[in-house]
Amino acid sequence: MYIPIILGTAREGRQSEKVAYYIEDKVKEAGITTKILDVRDFRIEATTTEGAIVKRYKNEITKAEALIIVSPEYNHAYPGELKMMLDMAYNEYSGKPVGICGVSAGGLGGARVVEQLRLVLAAFGMIQIKESLYFSNVESLFDTKGTIQDASYDERVVKFLKQLKEGVK
Amino acid sequence: MYIPIILGTAREGRQSEKVAYYIEDKVKEAGITTKILDVRDFRIEATTTEGAIVKRYKNEITKAEALIIVSPEYNHAYPGELKMMLDMAYNEYSGKPVGICGVSAGGLGGARVVEQLRLVLAAFGMIQIKESLYFSNVESLFDTKGTIQDASYDERVVKFLKQLKEGVK
Amino acid sequence: MYIPIILGTAREGRQSEKVAYYIEDKVKEAGITTKILDVRDFRIEATTTEGAIVKRYKNEITKAEALIIVSPEYNHAYPGELKMMLDMAYNEYSGKPVGICGVSAGGLGGARVVEQLRLVLAAFGMIQIKESLYFSNVESLFDTKGTIQDASYDERVVKFLKQLKEGVK
Amino acid sequence: MYIPIILGTAREGRQSEKVAYYIEDKVKEAGITTKILDVRDFRIEATTTEGAIVKRYKNEITKAEALIIVSPEYNHAYPGELKMMLDMAYNEYSGKPVGICGVSAGGLGGARVVEQLRLVLAAFGMIQIKESLYFSNVESLFDTKGTIQDASYDERVVKFLKQLKEGVK
Repeated sequence: MYIPIILGTAREGRQSEKVAYYIEDKVKEAGITTKILDVRDFRIEATTTEGAIVKRYKNEITKAEALIIVSPEYNHAYPGELKMMLDMAYNEYSGKPVGICGVSAGGLGGARVVEQLRLVLAAFGMIQIKESLYFSNVESLFDTKGTIQDASYDERVVKFLKQLKEGVK
Repeated sequence: MYIPIILGTAREGRQSEKVAYYIEDKVKEAGITTKILDVRDFRIEATTTEGAIVKRYKNEITKAEALIIVSPEYNHAYPGELKMMLDMAYNEYSGKPVGICGVSAGGLGGARVVEQLRLVLAAFGMIQIKESLYFSNVESLFDTKGTIQDASYDERVVKFLKQLKEGVK
Repeated sequence: MYIPIILGTAREGRQSEKVAYYIEDKVKEAGITTKILDVRDFRIEATTTEGAIVKRYKNEITKAEALIIVSPEYNHAYPGELKMMLDMAYNEYSGKPVGICGVSAGGLGGARVVEQLRLVLAAFGMIQIKESLYFSNVESLFDTKGTIQDASYDERVVKFLKQLKEGVK
Repeated sequence: MYIPIILGTAREGRQSEKVAYYIEDKVKEAGITTKILDVRDFRIEATTTEGAIVKRYKNEITKAEALIIVSPEYNHAYPGELKMMLDMAYNEYSGKPVGICGVSAGGLGGARVVEQLRLVLAAFGMIQIKESLYFSNVESLFDTKGTIQDASYDERVVKFLKQLKEGVK
């Protein structure tokens, strides 16, 4: 089973990569093949569904049996670079399960970006799992080595991955 | 009074520029100074609030007394390049009136992108006018010279601009 | 296969019942057992998950293998009586496919209520199908006998029901 | 200045009334006339804009110079009874400032109900203030006498009321 993780921000000093690495470890622990699809590696200048970068992205989504998206919340919504990446593909998403990890500097766990993304993913015809993960106060949630400081997340990730796996036909 | 128009897509063959030019004419007819802020002229590689391009954008928003956003609907939401541009500024938006023009290839007038944008603009503390404009079936709405084929839009634009102007303190 | 249709408005003179009856016919034609769950038959005074009416509603949802929701758009969103009915159940919805029919007096087909409902249904862990149905200008869409005046809907309903049936495990 | 507070749930054992009473005290402290408009006192059976209860509600909104809404988050959205009450009026809301207090049993402060309400209030043409208030973990946030246990809210309420007052023309 191959479930890549989209890292949805290219911003300098992005905190969400800590979440992406944490999730990557957990996905591997669950015996699932994974890889981080970093928006930095799929930069385009304008929304398009054509070109070499788009082709490379579509290949990844085609291979994927499900998808995890890690996204910070910028002004109550997703980063533009994430939307540009998501809009590169369309049919490739159809019918695949997807789970979202919201990331927030403050205390609301990215709850709003999760909701906005849900509507985009519904437009793709993806199967949304019930569980979302909310990472509040991300700067203090991980230590300098990237180790999560709140062990209760481990259990939630297990539930999240269980729902993703069950969704794969 | 200076009310610029943000053109929110950089996509090749973008239809929304017809709407932007149409609105630009109407704003000028109303005696308001305007200019199209084209996302193509404010390209950045990653969400940021620093740098020369950002500074240029912030200057435009600082000068603006109100804002018009013209955005197509890609997968029920705004183009990534538009969000990247919007996220360049923050305090510069506060308290300024804003109106949205949704653009759609199909029949639903971009109703969904208008709603998603409203939440981003609320995060900026902008004053949202009640009237939004919905441009359905955009490819056939304008002729090859860019003239709108449905005269009923003119009246709606007048109402839209009236609300924007009244919102300026 | 049992797929009931929720009729989401109790308003006097509601136009959405025409859509519900039309969908009911189509579901029967497809050989699926159905029934209209009318919000008028499940009135409560305050949001609750207890009592005889709630029990009756939960029984219906438990029996259902999938769900269709017909909802008008009141002020860009769902009627309160629909939300009161939906909130009566919770676990009963989990993992079941659901499709939404938006109904609108104007030209935007209830696109906004569809999006707001999607987020509520995601909270229930329902499986959302890709296709939604948009009924614009509902007052003129049906004749006085309730016959739809635009034959193109028939094809869309077939696609909608196909996705719903495929979603049933 | 008269700014009533809408209490948006009629549910037995509702926790949101603690928030409403807390806000009521603060509004009074700020020298503003207020009153709680409790959904329990405006019950109707179906969405309507006619009748004695509706008339009473419209009178309140007509008198109001601004509005505060206190709403719990039920399944990521507002209670049905709140939407029924809001839909009783329309023109009465136009151009008036409004602020939202989200209430949540969990840790996300009702962030999602705030966003869904914003879209309804935009449809009414209300002026949304930037600041919203998020009451997380509401059951433990107040003691048995209804006293808030986290003093940092006081400062946020001051900012919230300041924006509301400034919005009143």
